[in-house]
Amino acid sequence: MSDYQAPLHDMRFLLHDLFQAPATWARLPALAGHVDADTADAILEEAARVTSGLIAPLNREGDEIGAQWHDGDVTTPPGFREAYRGYSEGGWIGLAGNPDYGGMGMPKMLSVQCEEMLYAANSSFALYATLTSGACLAIDTHASDALRRQYLPRLYSGEWTGAMCLTEAHAGSDLGLIRTRAEPDNDGRYRITGSKIFITGGDHDLTDNIIHLVLARLPDAPAGPKGISLFLVPKRLPDAEGRAAEDNRVICGAIEHKMGIKASATCVMHFENSIGYLVGEPHRGLAAMFTMMNYERLSIGIQGIGCAARSLQVASEYARDRLQGRAAGSSDGPAPIIVHADVRRMLLTMKALTEGSRAFATYVGLQLDLAKFSDDEQERAAAAARVALLTPVAKAFFTDTGFESCVHGQQVLGGHGYIREWGQEQLVRDVRIAQIYEGTNGIQGLDLLGRKVVADNGAALMDFINLMRTDAESCPRFRAPLKEALDRLQQTSQWLIEQAATDPALVNASAVEYLHLLGYVAYAWLWARMDVAAADAKQGDPAFRAAKQDTAAFYFQRLLPRILSLEATLRSGSTSLTALPAEQF
Amino acid sequence: MSDYQAPLHDMRFLLHDLFQAPATWARLPALAGHVDADTADAILEEAARVTSGLIAPLNREGDEIGAQWHDGDVTTPPGFREAYRGYSEGGWIGLAGNPDYGGMGMPKMLSVQCEEMLYAANSSFALYATLTSGACLAIDTHASDALRRQYLPRLYSGEWTGAMCLTEAHAGSDLGLIRTRAEPDNDGRYRITGSKIFITGGDHDLTDNIIHLVLARLPDAPAGPKGISLFLVPKRLPDAEGRAAEDNRVICGAIEHKMGIKASATCVMHFENSIGYLVGEPHRGLAAMFTMMNYERLSIGIQGIGCAARSLQVASEYARDRLQGRAAGSSDGPAPIIVHADVRRMLLTMKALTEGSRAFATYVGLQLDLAKFSDDEQERAAAAARVALLTPVAKAFFTDTGFESCVHGQQVLGGHGYIREWGQEQLVRDVRIAQIYEGTNGIQGLDLLGRKVVADNGAALMDFINLMRTDAESCPRFRAPLKEALDRLQQTSQWLIEQAATDPALVNASAVEYLHLLGYVAYAWLWARMDVAAADAKQGDPAFRAAKQDTAAFYFQRLLPRILSLEATLRSGSTSLTALPAEQF
Repeated sequence: MSDYQAPLHDMRFLLHDLFQAPATWARLPALAGHVDADTADAILEEAARVTSGLIAPLNREGDEIGAQWHDGDVTTPPGFREAYRGYSEGGWIGLAGNPDYGGMGMPKMLSVQCEEMLYAANSSFALYATLTSGACLAIDTHASDALRRQYLPRLYSGEWTGAMCLTEAHAGSDLGLIRTRAEPDNDGRYRITGSKIFITGGDHDLTDNIIHLVLARLPDAPAGPKGISLFLVPKRLPDAEGRAAEDNRVICGAIEHKMGIKASATCVMHFENSIGYLVGEPHRGLAAMFTMMNYERLSIGIQGIGCAARSLQVASEYARDRLQGRAAGSSDGPAPIIVHADVRRMLLTMKALTEGSRAFATYVGLQLDLAKFSDDEQERAAAAARVALLTPVAKAFFTDTGFESCVHGQQVLGGHGYIREWGQEQLVRDVRIAQIYEGTNGIQGLDLLGRKVVADNGAALMDFINLMRTDAESCPRFRAPLKEALDRLQQTSQWLIEQAATDPALVNASAVEYLHLLGYVAYAWLWARMDVAAADAKQGDPAFRAAKQDTAAFYFQRLLPRILSLEATLRSGSTSLTALPAEQF
Repeated sequence: MSDYQAPLHDMRFLLHDLFQAPATWARLPALAGHVDADTADAILEEAARVTSGLIAPLNREGDEIGAQWHDGDVTTPPGFREAYRGYSEGGWIGLAGNPDYGGMGMPKMLSVQCEEMLYAANSSFALYATLTSGACLAIDTHASDALRRQYLPRLYSGEWTGAMCLTEAHAGSDLGLIRTRAEPDNDGRYRITGSKIFITGGDHDLTDNIIHLVLARLPDAPAGPKGISLFLVPKRLPDAEGRAAEDNRVICGAIEHKMGIKASATCVMHFENSIGYLVGEPHRGLAAMFTMMNYERLSIGIQGIGCAARSLQVASEYARDRLQGRAAGSSDGPAPIIVHADVRRMLLTMKALTEGSRAFATYVGLQLDLAKFSDDEQERAAAAARVALLTPVAKAFFTDTGFESCVHGQQVLGGHGYIREWGQEQLVRDVRIAQIYEGTNGIQGLDLLGRKVVADNGAALMDFINLMRTDAESCPRFRAPLKEALDRLQQTSQWLIEQAATDPALVNASAVEYLHLLGYVAYAWLWARMDVAAADAKQGDPAFRAAKQDTAAFYFQRLLPRILSLEATLRSGSTSLTALPAEQF
């Protein structure tokens, strides 16, 4: 595989030309004076340097060797431990973390772009880092001051890592079924007992301690999801100086053998009367964990973008070099395969989806920044509602389109895409998990349509549609198709909200297609805006700006029409899904 | 992974109820008295027994261990050699082979169904067998009587295997670029020198000899694809008794490390002045090889069906057992996940696509039988034209939908689909190659739209559309949507034929989406006919017949609408694909 080149040009275009981020930062008190256009560019360049120089070179061997389990200890592939130290010493774990405890307090808009580079360079490695950042966010938001002081600095610094312990063998998508127990001990501590599966980074040798956030039930807990509490359970208990010391009986029983992300240890974890600390209120653990899960959902979405961007880069290079066949209408050959329209179809599909996802992710980052940093309460609330609406779309649509893109990227290389050498098949295997973990993409669809649209009676959705309608007026080139797409989205949404009142199966039947419908329409909005931003930009490479406009045209002509099928399928309702008896499948 | 259960019920439904195959067999001289309904059922049952009992159990370990290369020799995983002997002793290699040389002379309709079971049981193993059958077909069709007598009996019997040597490092999709040389020797033999890559079963330890069909250039060959000849090159030359003897300098230089089909040896092959025999006319090698390639293209399509069928079986069993969440509108839980409409959506998509593909494959088998066995010249020609039109659709659409199905089958299992244990991730990895080899699915689209539709000015296509229109009249339940779909296909085809006259990039730009459009419409025709056949069947399980009708309704409501997007995309033409400069990807 060729060297990883971070798409800095596009990232800067999004920050500066599309979203004019520095102007927003300048009006947010916590960011004003702390980050500006130059800081942002410097951070992006340094992230590109670190991810391509330090982390990408470990990706292939990490896949070949994988994480290894031996007698309860997990070993990561060669170089991972040193790379994690180097990476965290650069402050990247706490890039958007709380400055009171050693975080850098940078805007999320910027950290989503850095995260893309990390996943593009090495998805397995990235997970150790992003789960730690997510654990920090949950601790910072919900834990006591004492816990924050004790744990956050060592997590931000990379001395320790974090992990998220939800799933049990019989409780995957249905967390209400979990059985892990928490018994009150002395000093306000708890004793945690139970087994968890599919724990990413549950054990490893990158750091001397691992801080687990564990869902468990207190003795008086009501049944179901409202009886779950959240506990912080370190692998080793800190001593008086706060250093990792006594073993806390947090045991890795095995690791999984997986299709991909092989250098990421996916662990069976046993807690055997382990000491834990309550995070947040009793029985409110799911809500607290959702702080971390929403962070991770966006992050896993970004895995989809990173893998797709890397695959596009490799496929484009290959297509410019590989000579096969003749250009249509020409008798000269062989020509580089990038002349063939079918190859361009695959590459442009990847490009339009990946750049659309990157713009969407940066937009969600902006909303997260407004929700966190704005001094206007109404703006904070509106941004938080937008984030709640768009997080499931980001997770599922970035990864569904990311998987599609990686499959195209593999196809462009023909047989060479199927063998290990070029790395394309690894990207397909690595990105595939992103559609499954952190809540399957079906669960994301249910969250979007059931909770964020139908239960909300379309209020947050209509706010978003109205924003897109307003923006459409300033996009003359694609105003008409964008408005037509918005009409389809709005009418289909209203139809679903109405029908769901009498058809209990409809939300479940429609969830995934609806999420895709919203995703394609939102990308149309972003592509229309990117087209305008590229046309208006006073600076920047004219060829880059022209390519943006060409890609926008491709999106409207060849990808947005996918909403026609989605709409027709959605309007068929749930009846064709419910008839067949279970034994006839 | 649970045991493989061949879908015999559906196969019998297709043979007996949908296509009434025994009536056709009875009127074809070579088949009448040779095969009837009872013979067919007995063959299918025996194929199910052998594939599930002998071959499926080797699948998982075959993936874990893989084919191994050591000092020029390839070793297959444990049990493969014995299984190949057992399988071929049953006569399966020559099931549809020429009885004059030891084949069983059975109809292709039947052998496509047996082949599905073989791929479902173990795709890697299947390739050794199906490539041998394909090599037999090419030899039987194009080689001299002497070569046929010498090689076919030992290939049909499984004593030797066959391989197909086309690709060179710089010549993949563009076979006109191949450089392997053939020099005339004495006795009408030739000396072959050159290197080939991606040769499936190029070397292995299943049998004592391997018969290579090799594309090479004679000294006086014109440049390009019209200067390629086909040669039979044994790994070991037969002695006077016809047994494998002298080494022929056919050397395996390495095997590839691949995403899947790991037990299938994908070889770099060197021919070093090896003795070869011309098959067919000089410089007409590509045409001769296409006999084998068309056979293999259908076969590789069937790999898509087999993998999808296996994945559906595992996913359905899992979904009936796994308890998570509550049924919509119910407060009881946890319920088996097959109650959730989103899970049913995935399973029904798999079922409708897989059963549609199986019907289509059996239909292509019927046409192959008519083209081969009919005593009516006009019927033979019409069937051959139908086969030429539908072979690229079979190859690409079975494998694109097969891949989609396996990805759904993996998704149904959530995290358990991503780990090795259940076998779903292996099916995704194994089926992925089928979209790439034997001519990528992009190449299939070009063959369909460029050669079979545009160059033919739509003649064979219109014959097929007219047949489907006639059939639509006898399908009252789905007549209207089927006719609407046929209108869309016909109008879009005509538009493309007209536009292609002035837009040289259009065929290449439209190839893949057009193939999908034709595929979805053809499946609608088959589902409408299956609906009628299920309603009319006098015998058979009523629950099975009701499920067929429910699945037909699902197909029309939720899958056929995909043609709306395809049509809109196709009608956007080629302009959005050609604008972007190569360096801007």
